Amino acid sequence: MHPPQWIAAWVLLLHGCATGSATTDVRDCSVDPPYLPPTATNTTAQLAALRAAMRAHRVQAYIVPSTDAHMSEYIAERDSRLGWLTGFTGSAGTGVVTQDKAALWTDSRYWTQAERQMDCNWELQRTVWIQSIGLWILEAVPAGGNIGLDPFLFSIDTWNSYSQALHGSGRTLLPIETNLVDQVWGDQRPPPASGEIYSLPAAFTGSSWQDKVAGIRQQMEQHVRRPTAVLLSGLEETAWLFNLRGDDIPYNPVFYSYTLLTNTSISLFVDVPRLSPSVQQSLQADCPGPLCVELREYGQARAHLRRYAQGNVTIWLGTEYTTYGLYSVIPQEKLLETSYSPVMLAKAVKNAKEQELLRAAHVRDAVAVIQYLLWLEKMVPQGQVDEFLGAQHIDALRRAQEHNRGPSFQSISASGLNAALAHYSPSNGSSRKLSADEMYLSDTGGQYLDGTTDITRTVHWGAPTPLQKEAYTRVLMGNIDLSRLVFPPNTAGRTVESFARRALWEVGLNYGHGTGHGIGNFLSVHEWPVGFQSNNVPLAAGMFTSIEPGYYRDGEFGIRIEDVALVVEAKTKHQSEEKPFLTFEVVSLVPYDRNLIDLSLLSPEQIQYLNAYYKTIRARVGPELQRQQLEEEYSWLQRNTEPFPLDSTATATATMSTVALASVLSTLLTGLQA
Amino acid sequence: MHPPQWIAAWVLLLHGCATGSATTDVRDCSVDPPYLPPTATNTTAQLAALRAAMRAHRVQAYIVPSTDAHMSEYIAERDSRLGWLTGFTGSAGTGVVTQDKAALWTDSRYWTQAERQMDCNWELQRTVWIQSIGLWILEAVPAGGNIGLDPFLFSIDTWNSYSQALHGSGRTLLPIETNLVDQVWGDQRPPPASGEIYSLPAAFTGSSWQDKVAGIRQQMEQHVRRPTAVLLSGLEETAWLFNLRGDDIPYNPVFYSYTLLTNTSISLFVDVPRLSPSVQQSLQADCPGPLCVELREYGQARAHLRRYAQGNVTIWLGTEYTTYGLYSVIPQEKLLETSYSPVMLAKAVKNAKEQELLRAAHVRDAVAVIQYLLWLEKMVPQGQVDEFLGAQHIDALRRAQEHNRGPSFQSISASGLNAALAHYSPSNGSSRKLSADEMYLSDTGGQYLDGTTDITRTVHWGAPTPLQKEAYTRVLMGNIDLSRLVFPPNTAGRTVESFARRALWEVGLNYGHGTGHGIGNFLSVHEWPVGFQSNNVPLAAGMFTSIEPGYYRDGEFGIRIEDVALVVEAKTKHQSEEKPFLTFEVVSLVPYDRNLIDLSLLSPEQIQYLNAYYKTIRARVGPELQRQQLEEEYSWLQRNTEPFPLDSTATATATMSTVALASVLSTLLTGLQA
Repeated sequence: MHPPQWIAAWVLLLHGCATGSATTDVRDCSVDPPYLPPTATNTTAQLAALRAAMRAHRVQAYIVPSTDAHMSEYIAERDSRLGWLTGFTGSAGTGVVTQDKAALWTDSRYWTQAERQMDCNWELQRTVWIQSIGLWILEAVPAGGNIGLDPFLFSIDTWNSYSQALHGSGRTLLPIETNLVDQVWGDQRPPPASGEIYSLPAAFTGSSWQDKVAGIRQQMEQHVRRPTAVLLSGLEETAWLFNLRGDDIPYNPVFYSYTLLTNTSISLFVDVPRLSPSVQQSLQADCPGPLCVELREYGQARAHLRRYAQGNVTIWLGTEYTTYGLYSVIPQEKLLETSYSPVMLAKAVKNAKEQELLRAAHVRDAVAVIQYLLWLEKMVPQGQVDEFLGAQHIDALRRAQEHNRGPSFQSISASGLNAALAHYSPSNGSSRKLSADEMYLSDTGGQYLDGTTDITRTVHWGAPTPLQKEAYTRVLMGNIDLSRLVFPPNTAGRTVESFARRALWEVGLNYGHGTGHGIGNFLSVHEWPVGFQSNNVPLAAGMFTSIEPGYYRDGEFGIRIEDVALVVEAKTKHQSEEKPFLTFEVVSLVPYDRNLIDLSLLSPEQIQYLNAYYKTIRARVGPELQRQQLEEEYSWLQRNTEPFPLDSTATATATMSTVALASVLSTLLTGLQA
Repeated sequence: MHPPQWIAAWVLLLHGCATGSATTDVRDCSVDPPYLPPTATNTTAQLAALRAAMRAHRVQAYIVPSTDAHMSEYIAERDSRLGWLTGFTGSAGTGVVTQDKAALWTDSRYWTQAERQMDCNWELQRTVWIQSIGLWILEAVPAGGNIGLDPFLFSIDTWNSYSQALHGSGRTLLPIETNLVDQVWGDQRPPPASGEIYSLPAAFTGSSWQDKVAGIRQQMEQHVRRPTAVLLSGLEETAWLFNLRGDDIPYNPVFYSYTLLTNTSISLFVDVPRLSPSVQQSLQADCPGPLCVELREYGQARAHLRRYAQGNVTIWLGTEYTTYGLYSVIPQEKLLETSYSPVMLAKAVKNAKEQELLRAAHVRDAVAVIQYLLWLEKMVPQGQVDEFLGAQHIDALRRAQEHNRGPSFQSISASGLNAALAHYSPSNGSSRKLSADEMYLSDTGGQYLDGTTDITRTVHWGAPTPLQKEAYTRVLMGNIDLSRLVFPPNTAGRTVESFARRALWEVGLNYGHGTGHGIGNFLSVHEWPVGFQSNNVPLAAGMFTSIEPGYYRDGEFGIRIEDVALVVEAKTKHQSEEKPFLTFEVVSLVPYDRNLIDLSLLSPEQIQYLNAYYKTIRARVGPELQRQQLEEEYSWLQRNTEPFPLDSTATATATMSTVALASVLSTLLTGLQA
C-alpha cells in the first residue's frame, strides 16, 4: 500500500496533467443556490464558531493540518480536526481559515473526494506546496496580521517552511497552545482512547526493552556531541522501545505517548492507568536505577522537558517527528537535531529474530491471499462478488490465520476503472461488481503479532486487452528488475527506484506514486524512514521495504504489483569494497497472474528470477497450506507456480529446428539402412 | 572529465575504504627533523605572516577556501590562495589556520597529492564535511573566539553551513573584507588578467545578447514575486548573456565580471578598458534605454548593489554562485533566492542553433581523437610514446582542427596503474611509457568557437586480462544502458544515473565518482547545473551532459568511457503524458575499443544500440575524414565501426550446430548417393 508522503511535487504535477482534473470541480459555487453533490458537508456552523474564536485570539488566519501531535500518518477520530471543520476526510491536507475565506490544500489523489465532500465555504487548492499556502495567506491577510496555529500539530520542518514563506512579509506566525478547533468542537469531540496498553510476549519481540534502551544509550555515548537524552515523539518509537502496544489509532497498534530517555533515567509519558499492573511491574522492576521507567502523565511531557532542558544537558531529537511545540522549549544550544531519532533508525534495521518473525507472518499471510485468489476465481464468474464483499472476505481469511490482529490498513479492493484511483476503498453502499471482463486490484495487509504485511495483486479472469497485458507485464518487469538488483552498501533508495520504472518508461508509460515503504513488526504498515523516497535513509541489510510499481489508466483500469522484500547481503563474483553488496529477498509469497504475463517481453534473466521465486513460494507456502489442510489451495499454488519456459521464443525455434533436422536425419538414416 | 563537485560524501567514504589510504601518510612528522618528500613546500614564512595578520584582526582562526569570488571551479593563479599558503595545488580543499595549528581538508582524490606537497606545518583531514571543519574549530578555538573569513569567497550555502556548525557554540563567524592571505601575499601575488575581452561572432552564438536579455526580463515579469533585478555572479553567466569571452582563467574562456540586470537597466561590472571599442559600441548601441549596457568597474559591484537594494526592489539571485559578501548587502525581504539564477537555467537548455553548433564541434573533435587513436596504434608498439607526449599530441591534433581554441581542460593521459587515479595528468619529468601490455586511458577535450568537447576512451593494444575485459565491457554496458534509457520529462539526473552502474554492481564492482556533467558552447567543460548529481536540475530536451561510467583498480588499471549526449524527445509506443518522454542522443562520435569488448556479456538490445551508434559515427564523421583527406583514418573508422553480430553466442551456437548437422547430412547424402 502506498503512503501519502509519496506524492512528491513532480509526481503531483505529472498526475495532475494526466487526469486533467485541475480545471473542473463537481461543485458549482457560481450559481445561487450553489450546486453541491449530496455528499457535501455543511460547514457554516463550524466555520462561524472557529472565526469567533479567532477574533477572540486576534488572529487573522488559522492553519489546520491533518496530522496529530505525533506526526502520525493514520490518526484517531478525535484528531480529525480538519475533517470536522471541512467535511473532507482524506488523510492529507491543510486548511486555512480567515474571517471571510477558507481554503483546503490537498494532493491529486484527493481532489475529487474534496470536491464531493466540501461545501462552497471552501475553495480547493490543488497543490500541497507550503509556498502556495504562504502566498494565499499573503493575499488574504494584510501586513501586520497574525497567522495562528497549534504548535503541537506542526513538525519543526513544516513550521520552518511556514516561517520562511511569511519571512519579511510583516505577517507573524503565532503559536496558540489552545487548539481553536478543539475549543469550538467542544463536547462533540470523540473521547480519548481508553483500551489497555499491553506488553508484546517475548516470543514476538526482537529483544527486551532493557537491551533496546542499552543500545540507544550506547549510541548516545558514542556520539561526538555526547547527548544526555533522547526525546521520542513518534508513537512507533515508544511502542517499539518498550515492546508495548495499544489500539489508539485504527490499523496501527500504538498508543499516545512520549519518551524522554536520558543517560540516567527513563520517563514514559502515557495515560498511566491504561497500563496493566503487570506491565507497570515489568517497567519498574529495576527501580530505582537507570533501568527504572518513571511513568508520567501524557500531558506532562512538555513541562517535564522544559525543566530537564534547564540543566547542563544535550537533547537528541528527530526533526521529522518532533513538533515545534516541544522543540521550542529546548534552548538551541542544547539541541542535537537529526532527521530521525536513533530509535527510529534502530527500529528500521530488523535483527535476525525480527527478520524471522516477519518472514513467518508472510507465510501465513500468503495462505490467506491464496485462499482469496482461489475463492475469487470460483466466485467471480458467478457474478456474486462485489468490491466490498471481496474486501470483507480477505479480511476474514486473514483473521482466521494464527496471531492475526486484523488488517494493517483499510483494504483496497478495486475493479475496472476504480483501480485507476490509487487510494480507492469500496464502501458497503457503492461497490462495483467484480467481473471476468475487467481487471481487479487487491491491496491488503494484516497485523500479526509477529509482523505486519502488505501485498498487492492484480488479476484478470477473462481476456485482458493487449494494453492491459503489456502494462501488467511491464509493471511485473519493474518489480523483478528492482527485486533482483544488486547494489553497493549505503545506497539510497531513491537512486535505485527507477529500475522499477524502466520497463514502463521504455514505451512511454509511468506511475505517479513512490515505489516502496518500510514496514514494521506488528507496527505500522508504512514504517519510516525506509523506502525509495528522497527523504528515506540509505538501504541496509535487515531493512524491510515494499516494492510496488504500478500503472493507472484513468477511467479504465489500474495495475499494481506489490511485494515486501528484505534487504540482504548479495553474493557477487567480485568483491571490491570492504562491505558486501546488497540485494533483496522477497518475503511476500504469492504468485502473479499468469493470464496477464506476456512472456515474450521478459528477458531470460527475468524469467530465471521468476522461476527461482516460484520455487521459494512452493518451498515455504506449500507445507503451510498442507499443514492447514488446504488441499485445493495447494493444487492452485502448484498450478500457478509452474516454471516458465526459459527464453520462450528462442527455445521454441531451437526445438522446432532440431526436431525438423532430426526428422530429416531419421528419414535419411532409414533410407540409408533400407 | 569529471568535476570535483562529484565526490559526494558517501562516495568519499567508499573510495576511502577502497584505497585504504586513510591511515598512512607519506610524510613522517613524528621524527626530528620530520621526513618530507622533496615535493613538499616550506610554508613556515607564509603561516607566520598570516598569523601576524590574524592577531592584528583579532581572529583566532582563519578559513581559506580553494575557490574565487565567483565560485569558479577552475581559478586563476592569482586566486590560488590556498595553494600559496599550503603548497597543495589540488583544485578542491579548505585550509584553517590558528596561532598554533593548521589543517587542510580535501577529498580522497587529493590525499596523496596533499601529503606530497604539504610540510609538517599542516595536518591533513581526509574529509570535506563542513561539520568536520566546524568540530576541529570548536576544539582548536576556545569559546569567545572569532573565526575570520573573506565573505567574498564563500557561497551563501557554504557560509550558512559554517554558521550552523558553530551555532550556539560561543564562537563568532567574522567576515573580514580585506583578504588576509592577499594582504600577506603582497606584491608576490600574480597580477590581474589584462587580455582583451571579445565578442563571439554571431555565427557562433545561439541568439543575440539583446534577445537573451529580453528572455530573462520576461521570466522576471512572469515570476509571482515580480523581481526587479537579477544579479549574476557566475563568470559563465555574464559571458553567455552578452556573448562575450575572455581568457582570465585557464581552459575557460571567461573574464572577471558581475552583472546586475534590472527591468529598466543593465550594469556590467568589468575591467572596462579590456573591452575593445567595437565591443563597447555594440553594448552601448541602444543607449540610453533599457538595452543600454552601462559599463562599470569590476570593483564597484558591491557598492552599486547596496545602493540599488535601498530602493523598492526585489533582487533575484542564485544561491549556489553568489557569495555571502554580495548577498549580505541585500535586505532579506528584497531577496528572491533560487539555487540557480534564471540565466544559469536558460544557458543550460541549448536552442536549435546551439545544438547544431555543439554537434558540429563534436564531428571535428572526433576527427582529432580518431587521428590520435590511430597514431597510438602505430606508435605505441614501437615504444616511443609516453603519457606526456601523448597528451601533447592530442592537444596538437585538436589545435589543427577548425575553430579550435585549445584544450578544454588539462589532458588526462594515463597508462596502467596511473589510470586508477581518477585525476591523473602526466608531467614532462615523470611520465609513464605507453605499452601494448597495459591499458591506457585518455580523457581530453577541446574548446572550439562552436562548442566545448570532452571525451574519454580507454584502450588496450595487446592481450587484456579477463578482469580488464569484463570490467571494460561492463563500463560500456553502463554507458549504453544510460544512453539508451527512455525517461519521463522532469526526471532528475540522480534518479537515473544508477543505470550506468548496474552492470558493474551485478558483479560487485562500482566507481567512486559521478556519472556526468553539463557542457557549454565555447564555455566551461563542466557546466552546471546539468548532470546526474543530487544538486543538478531535472533533465530537459536541449541539455547536454557527459555520460561517463568507469572502473578503477588501485595499483593496476583504470577504465572510463565518456561521451557527451544531448537530451532529446523520445518516440515511444504509447504516450501517457502531455509532454513526450526523453532520451539521449550521443554526440561524441568515436568508436570503442573492440579488443576490450566481451560481446557475450551484451544483451541483444545493447548490441543493436552499439550498431546503430556506429552507423551514426560513419555517417557523420566519415565524410569529414574524407573532406580532410584523412584516408588512413577513414579506413580505421570503417574497420572499427563494423557492425557486431547480433546475439553472438546464440548465433555462434546456431551456426556451429547447423554446420555440424550440414556436414553430417552431407556425409550421409554422399553415403546415400554412393
